[in-house]
Amino acid sequence: MTLYKDKLSVTEPIRLGIIGGGQLGKMLAAEAKRMSMQVVILDPTTRCPASSFADKVIVGNFSDEQKIYELAHEVDLVTYEIELANSRALTNLENSGVQVHPSPKTLSIVQNKLRQKKFLRENNISVPDFKEVLDEDQVDKVCAEFGYPVLLKACEDSYDGRGNYLIRSRDDIKGALEYFSGRECMLEKYVNFKKELSIMIARNPSGCISYFPVVENIHEDHILKTTIAPAQITAMAEKRAIDLAVKTMESLKGSGIFGIEMFLDEDDEVLINEIAPRPHNSGHYTIEACSVSQFEQHLRAILDYPMPQPTLESKAVMINILGPEEVSGPYTLNGIRDTLALPGVRIHLYGKEETRPKRKLGHVTILISNTNPLVVRDMVERKLSVQGKQKMA
Amino acid sequence: MTLYKDKLSVTEPIRLGIIGGGQLGKMLAAEAKRMSMQVVILDPTTRCPASSFADKVIVGNFSDEQKIYELAHEVDLVTYEIELANSRALTNLENSGVQVHPSPKTLSIVQNKLRQKKFLRENNISVPDFKEVLDEDQVDKVCAEFGYPVLLKACEDSYDGRGNYLIRSRDDIKGALEYFSGRECMLEKYVNFKKELSIMIARNPSGCISYFPVVENIHEDHILKTTIAPAQITAMAEKRAIDLAVKTMESLKGSGIFGIEMFLDEDDEVLINEIAPRPHNSGHYTIEACSVSQFEQHLRAILDYPMPQPTLESKAVMINILGPEEVSGPYTLNGIRDTLALPGVRIHLYGKEETRPKRKLGHVTILISNTNPLVVRDMVERKLSVQGKQKMA
Repeated sequence: MTLYKDKLSVTEPIRLGIIGGGQLGKMLAAEAKRMSMQVVILDPTTRCPASSFADKVIVGNFSDEQKIYELAHEVDLVTYEIELANSRALTNLENSGVQVHPSPKTLSIVQNKLRQKKFLRENNISVPDFKEVLDEDQVDKVCAEFGYPVLLKACEDSYDGRGNYLIRSRDDIKGALEYFSGRECMLEKYVNFKKELSIMIARNPSGCISYFPVVENIHEDHILKTTIAPAQITAMAEKRAIDLAVKTMESLKGSGIFGIEMFLDEDDEVLINEIAPRPHNSGHYTIEACSVSQFEQHLRAILDYPMPQPTLESKAVMINILGPEEVSGPYTLNGIRDTLALPGVRIHLYGKEETRPKRKLGHVTILISNTNPLVVRDMVERKLSVQGKQKMA
Repeated sequence: MTLYKDKLSVTEPIRLGIIGGGQLGKMLAAEAKRMSMQVVILDPTTRCPASSFADKVIVGNFSDEQKIYELAHEVDLVTYEIELANSRALTNLENSGVQVHPSPKTLSIVQNKLRQKKFLRENNISVPDFKEVLDEDQVDKVCAEFGYPVLLKACEDSYDGRGNYLIRSRDDIKGALEYFSGRECMLEKYVNFKKELSIMIARNPSGCISYFPVVENIHEDHILKTTIAPAQITAMAEKRAIDLAVKTMESLKGSGIFGIEMFLDEDDEVLINEIAPRPHNSGHYTIEACSVSQFEQHLRAILDYPMPQPTLESKAVMINILGPEEVSGPYTLNGIRDTLALPGVRIHLYGKEETRPKRKLGHVTILISNTNPLVVRDMVERKLSVQGKQKMA
């Protein structure tokens, strides 16, 4: 299985299988097709965003073992754009000799938040204080110990903040536990952060690691709204963030690109918030602003190609285009002309046929020089809007 | 037909028709799909490079009127990646209300080299001396007047240097005329150029013009081998090149992106060599090195979107991957690992299933800072090679 490492062929292409055909899968597929690879997608929706760049879409659930085997049968290697991929099925694949990157072992550590945090703590990587949750009494005790507010998190199957519940006082405990009714949960001490940071960092099977600049993220309701590259932080904070990310990758030993989300606290200390074992929303800016994109870097990593250190060619701001709260169904993106009048702007529209509240429909990246990134963000947000065609019932 | 100007919709997308599904069509389609447009391609080959990004491929000749009408019927606007598009059919389309960009009128001026040069001269735009060719005696006379060497050029249907014949002395005249046997030809005084330059320049139907940096091209056997961005020329030469390009676009009044190829002579004077009414090989570097790519700029131009002046974010070198002389048929691209070890490199492989001598199979762009671009070019050429699977008969 080393044939493809030094040769590319159009008639015998590298065949890439991607579990998940959302926007990450779409942008990854676009990169693969640029090098004339073949792309097969597994996704529940035939007309998923990645379908327009895929040679084939296998329609099925991310956790459907049979469908995952069907996918693997058609490709040279399997990767995924979501943590929800079935790690047991992937382990079986790997045991039968199929290349799966990042490894199912890494995925199983990362996809459960409690296991992830335990792993990081065991490897002496700074994380916010956390505790496993067993019953209401214990939650009560731990909350008192951590001090309010405290985050209750579902350990698995959470995405875009849907797995977090902020307990502001003792009165919230019952509601919080009911919100996740029966799911495995953990408590996390709320970090009074100055900024939220992230790094995209890649490791290939040979153990080489290379990372993108530290960036700054602004969330709203736990959903990423804006990324500013590079982060406006001290050199010390930058160094701490990079060290933490590198140490994480060395410990996890996964291959592929990872998004490492971090908190920067009042004392300029950095703690890891969450790890995504895949391309990440906060790395979209790399397409336009860096010497290599996070998607190409992921391909390089999983194919064990060299990964020279990426360079930031221009400062940039990335703004997510989110579905507005009040609408659902078909929509239009308005204000295209005005948005395209901004120098250095590029619009990505993912191809989702329907909007839903807070759904990620696309994003905009703007290369900037000395303009204030927040001013640029505000300009885009004033110009660009999502308009639903019907009000929600 | 202005609906799409300020709105993008996934469910009622802009439908783009492209005549020609080669590498230019592929990269243009990739840009269109990024904004969730729909793409229909007309190409003689079902599995043409652009097919992997197309929603539909209509199989047919570029000049086939019925197929062009079939294409137009399925889309909101028609563009082309080749001068060979049937301008009569496009004129009929335009007359029946279909949006065609660049306009068939502009295409008909540009697609015939003699008409193109006459047009430029009438508009006081510097071109090398040229003459229409009627018979052998006249060729003899004009060659003596211009002084050897002289270029004999086929006026139409020439591509990648296949339409040029260099007459070095009187003895070559008969052979040159036989080479183009019966095709319409012109003679052009050979310019003893210092450098070959080009500019990608776009105009939208509203008349706005914006241009990319002046770049420097190195040809081998009339086929583009290397582009260096920006051109290493004097400020005066740069200004002359830009002025000439802008004047050309103002005169031609076409909408879309145009590649303007120029000669820089010993006196730092600039003359127009050729015009391509489409994205151009010498503009590929814009994908990685500029704030907007030539492909996005073409879409903006034909859709009448704003086109802020592009900026060069990094110096760059583009190297074409050409089929070697001695092979034909399936091939592999070797040396991928070593090539990807160069910082700032990106490989494009177009997806052509067979190589042919000098066929454009892909290209490599490298972002550079202060390295000598020719040293970088040499490094890539040493590492990357096309290997045919069978020798030519």
